Amino acid sequence: MKNLIKFSATFLIFFVLLTSCKQEPQVKTKSAVETKTVITDPLPSWNDVNSKKAIISYVDAVTDKNGANFIPIADRISVFDNDGTLWSEKPIYFFILYAMDRVKSMAKDHPEWKNKQPFKAVLENDMEALEKSGEKGLIQIIMATHSGISVKSFKESVLEWSKTAKHPKMNKLYSEMVYQPMLELLNYLRDHDFKTYIVSGGEVEFMRVFLTEIYGIPEEQIIGTRLKTEYVYNNGNPHIKRLAGLDFNDDKEGKAVNIQAIIGKKPVFAGGNSDGDLQMLQWTASSSHKSFMLYLHHTDAEREWAYDRKSHVGKLDKGLDQAIKDGWTVIDMKNDWKLIYPFELN
Amino acid sequence: MKNLIKFSATFLIFFVLLTSCKQEPQVKTKSAVETKTVITDPLPSWNDVNSKKAIISYVDAVTDKNGANFIPIADRISVFDNDGTLWSEKPIYFFILYAMDRVKSMAKDHPEWKNKQPFKAVLENDMEALEKSGEKGLIQIIMATHSGISVKSFKESVLEWSKTAKHPKMNKLYSEMVYQPMLELLNYLRDHDFKTYIVSGGEVEFMRVFLTEIYGIPEEQIIGTRLKTEYVYNNGNPHIKRLAGLDFNDDKEGKAVNIQAIIGKKPVFAGGNSDGDLQMLQWTASSSHKSFMLYLHHTDAEREWAYDRKSHVGKLDKGLDQAIKDGWTVIDMKNDWKLIYPFELN
Repeated sequence: MKNLIKFSATFLIFFVLLTSCKQEPQVKTKSAVETKTVITDPLPSWNDVNSKKAIISYVDAVTDKNGANFIPIADRISVFDNDGTLWSEKPIYFFILYAMDRVKSMAKDHPEWKNKQPFKAVLENDMEALEKSGEKGLIQIIMATHSGISVKSFKESVLEWSKTAKHPKMNKLYSEMVYQPMLELLNYLRDHDFKTYIVSGGEVEFMRVFLTEIYGIPEEQIIGTRLKTEYVYNNGNPHIKRLAGLDFNDDKEGKAVNIQAIIGKKPVFAGGNSDGDLQMLQWTASSSHKSFMLYLHHTDAEREWAYDRKSHVGKLDKGLDQAIKDGWTVIDMKNDWKLIYPFELN
Repeated sequence: MKNLIKFSATFLIFFVLLTSCKQEPQVKTKSAVETKTVITDPLPSWNDVNSKKAIISYVDAVTDKNGANFIPIADRISVFDNDGTLWSEKPIYFFILYAMDRVKSMAKDHPEWKNKQPFKAVLENDMEALEKSGEKGLIQIIMATHSGISVKSFKESVLEWSKTAKHPKMNKLYSEMVYQPMLELLNYLRDHDFKTYIVSGGEVEFMRVFLTEIYGIPEEQIIGTRLKTEYVYNNGNPHIKRLAGLDFNDDKEGKAVNIQAIIGKKPVFAGGNSDGDLQMLQWTASSSHKSFMLYLHHTDAEREWAYDRKSHVGKLDKGLDQAIKDGWTVIDMKNDWKLIYPFELN
């Protein structure tokens, strides 16, 4: 953005210099302004629906310096859930799919896993048994596969995996399973000087490996579930070691708590897709600024998945009720989006 | 910064427009360029000493696109301790002085404090007894005065205090006791697209109240010691409640751990003044980029305070040894700085 401003300014100066002695000053000023106001659709993958109109109308309102709802740039904090909001989350969160692949590749050193849940379920690809193991089971898998190594080694492992591992149903790289309309929304907000954050139940260092570039969100704006870690000096080659303990579960109430702890101010724009995001949206709704609460409703069984109130992964029940009651914006994926994934653009 | 760029650009455009039809185009271009390349001293409150030269030489090297040590903007993360590095910390950390003032104003509701340490020491202004109570005593005072209320109420209380409370020795507002040369350094780094962070043992919400504006560092770039908190829905008027428990002690190893947890990448520039900052500086020294480690040595008994190896507050002992051994930059406050506080500018 800064570079864009610098570039625009330089361009304007040259433009003015080049043309300045050929026309009246007033005309020149107008030309320069016209150059800047070419209108393009900021959300081209969205149909012309209410959710899109509401987003644009909101951004227009809060960035209008003379409007009653103007929000200073420093307060333009936007927060987004990741799994099911910025990319898919079926059959299960992708960081769990990474962990499952790790369990399989580590199994030869752990013969006991063959008869021990939830590892047995992973090795047998028994998703039902895995789901039954619940949050506790998932945490066991995360601890077994994500800890005991340095942050650096862990990230190298995720990077390696991300280059080749494919989604079991879609047969696409996970990095290809982000939502094109949401990438456009993130860009649109940043173009209007919003800071875009991820606030996700996903493990934070996993997300930081390959989502930074895809989303255009730097590491320091990715907030997630954390493992405990420790600093190891290692004779002048220090590293941060990941320990087999949960430091913070960035879900439900935890999202609001973590937003205050790390960002230190209340967001004005929040997007999610499940009951795990409800407190983050409530927290945003209580802003003293005009705020925007967005739920993505998975209604597209054909192009993606359709699920809500009864789903184990990405359950949207209480959240949907509150969204309807309080007039929050709900994206109907099937109806509102022209396409889902970037590869559909080709 | 962005506003400054916008302003500069606007100024240049007007300048060019105003003068453009009176002179030859070539001359105009030169004028505009000259306007931009006026060389001003970025660190005017620093004497022409080695520490200043080392800083400028480092920034020149890592921002030179064609140089071997160029650092991409996304990786220009700088971290600074606060107490004793960006403002004074004597006779004790200022957030403790706030807590002491709170103890005094809360004492009428706590008659038991008269005979109970460390509260007795506070009420009797017995700094020696307070120091003896150690970290445990300080944490007790923090918990008694910083918790049981919402983040919002706490911050209002700190803001109120900051407007009138004066330093016991200097008789200045605490906001006036920041170091002018360090304010210049923060600005200088930001002018070269470094992100400036505070990573301090101080309580994070205390710092976020009135240091944001003074340092030009937004809330989300202030990292510190945290209390446990919880999200309270409160019938649609949610708040974050501060609890009487330590969530994270942002000191020593904790600084490196917190930098990874929150920023997610290794800094390339770190400034501190005590052994509590040593791990942060070591961590920075291990960057794959050319990095800069800075210790502020309090050597000025006349204008500020002189202390190091034997001090209870801001002890600098192992850190000084490593700085000398590894060739880190050490600021000799007495010798290197023309002035200490902004009010000396008047």
